[in-house]
Amino acid sequence: MEKGRLLYEGKAKQLFATEDENILFVSYKDSATAFNGEKKEEIDGKGNLNNKITTILFQQLKKNGIESHFVEQISENEQLVRKVEIIPLEVVVRNVAAGSLAKRLGMDEGILLKHPIVEFYYKDDALGDPLLTDAHIELLELAKPEEIEILNRKALDINQVLQPIFKEIGVTLVDFKLEFGKTAKGEILLADEISPDTCRLWDDETNNKLDKDVFRRNLGSLTEVYEIILSRLGGLSK
Amino acid sequence: MEKGRLLYEGKAKQLFATEDENILFVSYKDSATAFNGEKKEEIDGKGNLNNKITTILFQQLKKNGIESHFVEQISENEQLVRKVEIIPLEVVVRNVAAGSLAKRLGMDEGILLKHPIVEFYYKDDALGDPLLTDAHIELLELAKPEEIEILNRKALDINQVLQPIFKEIGVTLVDFKLEFGKTAKGEILLADEISPDTCRLWDDETNNKLDKDVFRRNLGSLTEVYEIILSRLGGLSK
Repeated sequence: MEKGRLLYEGKAKQLFATEDENILFVSYKDSATAFNGEKKEEIDGKGNLNNKITTILFQQLKKNGIESHFVEQISENEQLVRKVEIIPLEVVVRNVAAGSLAKRLGMDEGILLKHPIVEFYYKDDALGDPLLTDAHIELLELAKPEEIEILNRKALDINQVLQPIFKEIGVTLVDFKLEFGKTAKGEILLADEISPDTCRLWDDETNNKLDKDVFRRNLGSLTEVYEIILSRLGGLSK
Repeated sequence: MEKGRLLYEGKAKQLFATEDENILFVSYKDSATAFNGEKKEEIDGKGNLNNKITTILFQQLKKNGIESHFVEQISENEQLVRKVEIIPLEVVVRNVAAGSLAKRLGMDEGILLKHPIVEFYYKDDALGDPLLTDAHIELLELAKPEEIEILNRKALDINQVLQPIFKEIGVTLVDFKLEFGKTAKGEILLADEISPDTCRLWDDETNNKLDKDVFRRNLGSLTEVYEIILSRLGGLSK
């Protein structure tokens, strides 16, 4: 499969066309960004790590009956995916209070939620990715009520698969962000990535953060903790 | 009915006990506040105006089958109300994009929404009254799912009554904030006030703001525009 023209460049990935109009070529970048792009750094090896971690997690999800856009990993930092039209919503699942939820609701970080919750944020950098209610989503015509229901359901199903995977490697899946897209046929499919860039992962023994908060809050080497996640998930970093 | 001890003092009203444990005495203050209390001023006559406007609107709602805590107006700036336990949610109904909705969704102010929407904000000054989703409300145990449904329904019903009342006096009801309480029997009842402090009201001819935005944005005399609303609603300011 040959890499065609660049279709889209985001903060962490580039998307290229291929000779198959239904397949895209994803290249994971070494850029780390936080706070809506205010903090930015190039970190050697980050792209490889996220490509490999996402590959493992999308494969695990597939084994558990949850399809995604993922087709196959083709190099250290590249994978092929099915082409979808991204729904401009960040779908966040939370198991434990942290980050903006803790701040918004005045809860202490680390409190286990009675049950997982799903939140939707508007994928719009200029607006600062604001929290949306279902009524806002319908008003902006970002998704129909029945599609919101599907996103909610899929997000919780994915959480049910991912939580034990992380629990088994001694990590609490605190929260994570998903993106979904629509295929040409209108099917809603998990897309984007699942990596320490998009999850909060806390070590069950040390309570250390094994995710992008290490970068956000200057807590140490990003690649060191991403490598911990990759190797515990059974992946090889080289 | 005698005014007993002060039970609660908010930004715009004081609540006193009466000899009847089910009835409270509300005294409307002359204080105007905005931006979570950052801007503050005493404005002679404001309490009287809001007391009278609220009285008219709660009476109109009652005529249209919507009960509230309102019992009767007893002086220029005082009314008796049924005692309820306030649900700590600001229930906002919006017909036209303005204020925080326009900002959050990147919409121009003044755009008519396809249909009215209801939003819930957490009544918590320390947190800055954040927007809540249904999942947040359940998590914080502020209301049960079926109660959220009742609040939603009542808010839209109230909008259906208020919109034509304002339309008839040449005013667009852009948006408004409601508060609800629970009676000792657990019945959910409209409470608080409905006044230019809690509504956005735009003159249909001049497009002038006839509400607290006059104070928030320093657009002129607050009492002059509140008197316009009171007199158009058929009330007498003296």
